[in-house]
Amino acid sequence: MGQIIKGKPVADAISAALAEEVKGLKVKGITPKLTIVRVGANGSDLAYERGALKRCQEIGIETEVKELPVDISQDDFITELKKVNEDKATNGILVFRPFPKQLDESVIKYVIAPEKDVDCFSPVNVAKVMESDVTGFAPCTPSAVIEILKHYEVPMKGKNAVVVGRSMVVGKPVSMLLLNENATVTICHSRTADMPAVCSEADILVVGIGKAKMIDSKYVKDGAAVIDVGINVDAEGKLCGDVNTDDCVEKASMITPVPAGVGSVTTSILAKHVVKACKQQNNL
Amino acid sequence: MGQIIKGKPVADAISAALAEEVKGLKVKGITPKLTIVRVGANGSDLAYERGALKRCQEIGIETEVKELPVDISQDDFITELKKVNEDKATNGILVFRPFPKQLDESVIKYVIAPEKDVDCFSPVNVAKVMESDVTGFAPCTPSAVIEILKHYEVPMKGKNAVVVGRSMVVGKPVSMLLLNENATVTICHSRTADMPAVCSEADILVVGIGKAKMIDSKYVKDGAAVIDVGINVDAEGKLCGDVNTDDCVEKASMITPVPAGVGSVTTSILAKHVVKACKQQNNL
Repeated sequence: MGQIIKGKPVADAISAALAEEVKGLKVKGITPKLTIVRVGANGSDLAYERGALKRCQEIGIETEVKELPVDISQDDFITELKKVNEDKATNGILVFRPFPKQLDESVIKYVIAPEKDVDCFSPVNVAKVMESDVTGFAPCTPSAVIEILKHYEVPMKGKNAVVVGRSMVVGKPVSMLLLNENATVTICHSRTADMPAVCSEADILVVGIGKAKMIDSKYVKDGAAVIDVGINVDAEGKLCGDVNTDDCVEKASMITPVPAGVGSVTTSILAKHVVKACKQQNNL
Repeated sequence: MGQIIKGKPVADAISAALAEEVKGLKVKGITPKLTIVRVGANGSDLAYERGALKRCQEIGIETEVKELPVDISQDDFITELKKVNEDKATNGILVFRPFPKQLDESVIKYVIAPEKDVDCFSPVNVAKVMESDVTGFAPCTPSAVIEILKHYEVPMKGKNAVVVGRSMVVGKPVSMLLLNENATVTICHSRTADMPAVCSEADILVVGIGKAKMIDSKYVKDGAAVIDVGINVDAEGKLCGDVNTDDCVEKASMITPVPAGVGSVTTSILAKHVVKACKQQNNL
């Protein structure tokens, strides 16, 4: 019987270390600041925003929310984003996506200042993730996966890591980050011929495929660490991940729950990236 | 006993199709042009350049070589590169690397115009490779691997592809390209615990690790397609790949030789990218 590994202790450890770091920065007269750019007011953006603001405030990071009208034009949005880019007080920028239809993400992603882009919206940061350039910012969710594995002392070097899903928000970046930790990385997806066979070779199984409880115990090797990045709603209307936790916990050595798993760590990563951006911008 | 699959038939097929396409462009008054930017005159650059110029001329692509002094300053180099960016006649730019020490690649890569960057020097193209954005340009060598597999009708969808090596010139981009072809992709490297075990699960084995003849038959599954991207010099001073071809050809269904394998295809890919860039720039 494996251990359910929650996100909160990881988030708390990261936050505590950041709070110390921010104290040190304030002594030097520097206060890190996150500006959130939100178009309209959809529920999931607002929920994440509340969590992010609370986390930053705990740590001592200043915050600002720029709410823009849901029907803002592309030109006006770009003008507003450029103002945030140029705002000297702002070190990190989080832009909520997806956008309403009139805004073209494939254009806007080139506008955000890469050095303030704390959630890997800019192609410059995408390239840095692929190149293992530590000055860049990986997206918060895949970074949270790595922090959880490190916190619970799951060895990665030389281990078989299997990533289920090849999205740009989870699968591909987490594969690159696992590779940086010297894991042997396999990426599988909907077209993989025998996914249970591939997954059950994994010492570390990271799942982000967007299908409720798809991964059951036949995908899991005895003693594997299972990280569930999915967020779905099950038939009873309850939140659940991509992994059938009850079924897999028997074989896994460790498994993250949903809710209270990876999702609880992302705002701490966001805060960590803001502090990193602030230090880089101040040549510290 | 497997088949030795050479690069030349692949290169010839690509070139023949391109020559037709260029004819069509010339009817519209458009001639694609490649400009090569070379610093100094080292032997391997010159050898590749001769091949690239010959290939382009066969196809009808105009070429120009900008040779710059080996001691050129960073500022002067950037000025020269910007001139090529702005040259309306130039559709594709190839910049030879690595540079002499006074030139900082990490700065210069942001200068090349992404839409003319036919060998994936710009971070914009690195990001596009990761995002499977077909408007981008993957590096020529990994693209050549995919063209060879397609030419010899090696099925990729749902198959196990194992990539040995995680460099930015071969391993990582070829992994992304194989993923686009719907293969299940495993990336292994020097820290992989049991590389022969991992590799011998591969239906497609792509090797780019830079160690002469490292891969022998114990790394190869019966019937696998083996693509050798290595270029090394063996103890007798002869060119060889990362694969011990003689030993592996018994088990493989197909295997590329070195020389006369992947390396013979890269200049055709370069030409293909120049034509693609030209068409994109002319909204065709």
